[in-house]
Amino acid sequence: NCPLTLIGGPCVIESGDFTLFMAEQIAKVCDRLGISFIFKSSFDKANRTSINSFRGQNLETGLQILQRVKEEVGVPVLTDIHESYQAATVAEVVDVLQIPAFLCRQTDLLLAAAATGKVVNVKKGQFLGPWDMKNVVRKLESGGTKRILLTERGTSFGYNTLVVDFRSLPQMREFGYPVVFDATHSVQMPGGQGDKSGGQRQFVPYLARAAAAIGIDALFMEVHENPDTAPSDGPNMIPLAELESVLKQVLNVRNSLQAVPTTV
Amino acid sequence: NCPLTLIGGPCVIESGDFTLFMAEQIAKVCDRLGISFIFKSSFDKANRTSINSFRGQNLETGLQILQRVKEEVGVPVLTDIHESYQAATVAEVVDVLQIPAFLCRQTDLLLAAAATGKVVNVKKGQFLGPWDMKNVVRKLESGGTKRILLTERGTSFGYNTLVVDFRSLPQMREFGYPVVFDATHSVQMPGGQGDKSGGQRQFVPYLARAAAAIGIDALFMEVHENPDTAPSDGPNMIPLAELESVLKQVLNVRNSLQAVPTTV
Amino acid sequence: NCPLTLIGGPCVIESGDFTLFMAEQIAKVCDRLGISFIFKSSFDKANRTSINSFRGQNLETGLQILQRVKEEVGVPVLTDIHESYQAATVAEVVDVLQIPAFLCRQTDLLLAAAATGKVVNVKKGQFLGPWDMKNVVRKLESGGTKRILLTERGTSFGYNTLVVDFRSLPQMREFGYPVVFDATHSVQMPGGQGDKSGGQRQFVPYLARAAAAIGIDALFMEVHENPDTAPSDGPNMIPLAELESVLKQVLNVRNSLQAVPTTV
Amino acid sequence: NCPLTLIGGPCVIESGDFTLFMAEQIAKVCDRLGISFIFKSSFDKANRTSINSFRGQNLETGLQILQRVKEEVGVPVLTDIHESYQAATVAEVVDVLQIPAFLCRQTDLLLAAAATGKVVNVKKGQFLGPWDMKNVVRKLESGGTKRILLTERGTSFGYNTLVVDFRSLPQMREFGYPVVFDATHSVQMPGGQGDKSGGQRQFVPYLARAAAAIGIDALFMEVHENPDTAPSDGPNMIPLAELESVLKQVLNVRNSLQAVPTTV
Repeated sequence: NCPLTLIGGPCVIESGDFTLFMAEQIAKVCDRLGISFIFKSSFDKANRTSINSFRGQNLETGLQILQRVKEEVGVPVLTDIHESYQAATVAEVVDVLQIPAFLCRQTDLLLAAAATGKVVNVKKGQFLGPWDMKNVVRKLESGGTKRILLTERGTSFGYNTLVVDFRSLPQMREFGYPVVFDATHSVQMPGGQGDKSGGQRQFVPYLARAAAAIGIDALFMEVHENPDTAPSDGPNMIPLAELESVLKQVLNVRNSLQAVPTTV
Repeated sequence: NCPLTLIGGPCVIESGDFTLFMAEQIAKVCDRLGISFIFKSSFDKANRTSINSFRGQNLETGLQILQRVKEEVGVPVLTDIHESYQAATVAEVVDVLQIPAFLCRQTDLLLAAAATGKVVNVKKGQFLGPWDMKNVVRKLESGGTKRILLTERGTSFGYNTLVVDFRSLPQMREFGYPVVFDATHSVQMPGGQGDKSGGQRQFVPYLARAAAAIGIDALFMEVHENPDTAPSDGPNMIPLAELESVLKQVLNVRNSLQAVPTTV
Repeated sequence: NCPLTLIGGPCVIESGDFTLFMAEQIAKVCDRLGISFIFKSSFDKANRTSINSFRGQNLETGLQILQRVKEEVGVPVLTDIHESYQAATVAEVVDVLQIPAFLCRQTDLLLAAAATGKVVNVKKGQFLGPWDMKNVVRKLESGGTKRILLTERGTSFGYNTLVVDFRSLPQMREFGYPVVFDATHSVQMPGGQGDKSGGQRQFVPYLARAAAAIGIDALFMEVHENPDTAPSDGPNMIPLAELESVLKQVLNVRNSLQAVPTTV
Repeated sequence: NCPLTLIGGPCVIESGDFTLFMAEQIAKVCDRLGISFIFKSSFDKANRTSINSFRGQNLETGLQILQRVKEEVGVPVLTDIHESYQAATVAEVVDVLQIPAFLCRQTDLLLAAAATGKVVNVKKGQFLGPWDMKNVVRKLESGGTKRILLTERGTSFGYNTLVVDFRSLPQMREFGYPVVFDATHSVQMPGGQGDKSGGQRQFVPYLARAAAAIGIDALFMEVHENPDTAPSDGPNMIPLAELESVLKQVLNVRNSLQAVPTTV
């Protein structure tokens, strides 16, 4: 019954001006639709497929830009961390610390994130069953936090392919924390283009609607003004111009669950 | 924009009276909700996990019972065939011939089904990608029919487990035929109980709603008055008493797609 | 400690002369190496990817050619059946009836094969765990036969890809019957070329050696004088000219197991 | 044609005395068989399934124990690192730095390891195809090293299960570096016991022999005097008492490849 939250933004922090522009545009769409908005962008793409890929701004510059988003757009911000030393610094600026899927079992990283007192969003590893996330939750809880989000972003299915097992959403919700569906990484084709990942942007609206029909607390989508020229995750990000349409579809599906007693 | 169709019934034909009872009960629910109804039940479970499992009535008795359903309940009926010699006989009674997933590439079976002129519903093999179904469609078309339904019922994911890749529904729809989501076999755990298949009935409403949010023409669900005592597929069939609730949820989600321009 | 058996031949029966030629050539190689030989070729490719693919000779012609192989080359022959009515007729000629992987759970087909009294070779379904084959074995045993071979030919791994889980060989051997490794279908890429299957012939020697190191009773390989022009399974068959080299490698690995007490 | 190398030892560093004991015992076996030996043990299990699992010694103590192994047993040592700050410190003692599978795409970690000038052994992520390791190799090369080992340790296959695709060994070898087969983690069942991982120790000899038949430069096996009481990875480690038997089998298979021209 809570309003939907969107966690969204361009995959990686490019320039300050572009980042601000994107945050403002997405915020406007969310305002119109009554959706809560958390801005997401990465200061560092620490596990890019190839060494030659753009990695983003350095930590300091990235955080300065995220600070501007908070102040000038007035929305909470989320970014991901990759080693435990980054947690405290990043937590000085961001509202939500994100743990990447590959790193979701790294105990030190989880404990460092928990210690900040900020909300921690953990992406379910592509190599884990939904029930395996209970151990991740316990690691965070043992670090003293109950401010936890759990995100589904697809599971390894053969080579260079992910599949979303939507049973994971109700299963992860049983751990007692809000669940998030990452609709754009779920259509990634990891490493599918040799030295970079491919993606199937065209399926984002379908999977986002399906997740809404299952029952989610937040939707995660990477959005870019022009995904085809974006430095990271272009093939799976959705264009800014389509954001409102996708969100409307998701809201309509989500609202339809209110109309009857629903198994959630 | 077409009304939803339910393909439903108990997995296997038990007694004539029970079969009639189930058909009537399901028909009443569908009437109340404005859903089209095709009654499904198998005269023979030809690929049961174990040799000791109940296989159903013989062909002749099974068809007599299906004939009674047609006449006394007034609904179209569907059953599955396993060898090509059965097609013509079965087609004298049923309205839809179903090709089981394991057999979806058997050319003779497809051609025999196509030759009857009846609607043919093919389940996508657990071992096929959605695009591979194009070759199945072409086999049927080459047999002279365009009366084709394509059903998603889950894909092999490791051992004894299926996963639904919901991208398959829009992909199969591109072949130009109606698509069906089989919500009860999709939660089957094939062979998962040693000498019989397990199932996760509790996820049926979630996956059925997700399919409705993606966009389907028909929903397939096996329904039983008392699944826990059913001779086949008990762990994944839904109880008759829950059918109406599940269908209402599905209809609400489906109707919500009408409210905005939707990517389907 | 038994000598190795090769089950081999071109995928599908082409002309009688070519079939005889291949049988003679393979028999010579096996003679030189002290390997038992069972000639394999299909009279019908009943589940080709596409309707336009060559399906082989009809049943009668195919069996006549296999009869000539038996008489003129003096080796036992194997072919596969697809519907239960074929079992008795085929058994008049062949020594081993083979059940295709997609059909390995079809009870009627298994029982019809068992009833012939001939050896039955069942390929493990791509959708089954090795332990699931126990139920297949029981079906055959309940049909009155103990003359059973169990063949590993790869398991579904994502889309259009198979993977061999070599743990299946010792697991299936525990059922008390000889195990076979199908080295050429294991490198198939089902449907991987759109309207036909691809294959990775270059990995056949590796996987055949690995199977020999695990422990097998027979090796199954499709062999063709010129795979690149073969009407079926060209991408995964090995050329006749390479057969002897592959078999020598396999024999050497297999013999090395005798030298020390081996966990088999 | 190079002699085989064993990378082996108990999963995690327990006491100094026990670690020394294990190193000595394994070294003796390798000496007898003419196998090169690199001692492996982890100072920290940074990604244990559960927060309550034993993580090992701290970095300083762990390195002191590894230093004793080098000096007192006279063998090179390997350990794994989890964050980039550890690389330089660890490299003061160990001969081979290992990058865990979950972390194989973390660019900073790879570059930090490369910068030490020590050999770097990268485990292929359970979520990667063999060809994807080319990008990992390039990251290391761009960091200035050519001292690289690539290890196969199984690929995600459904939930809580790994499968070894042995085609990965020849594919990874094409990148120009030695390939290693990790026979004990390949039989792990990640998270398969709820709050810890299960394993299938009984399949280790089979898979190790299969890898030898494919062609490997080194074999990785975790070994423990009493795996059933070991604090980590007990279900998949092999007992010290069986080490010599397994290695003999592997050597016999490996030597058999020399006898004929082999496709490697």
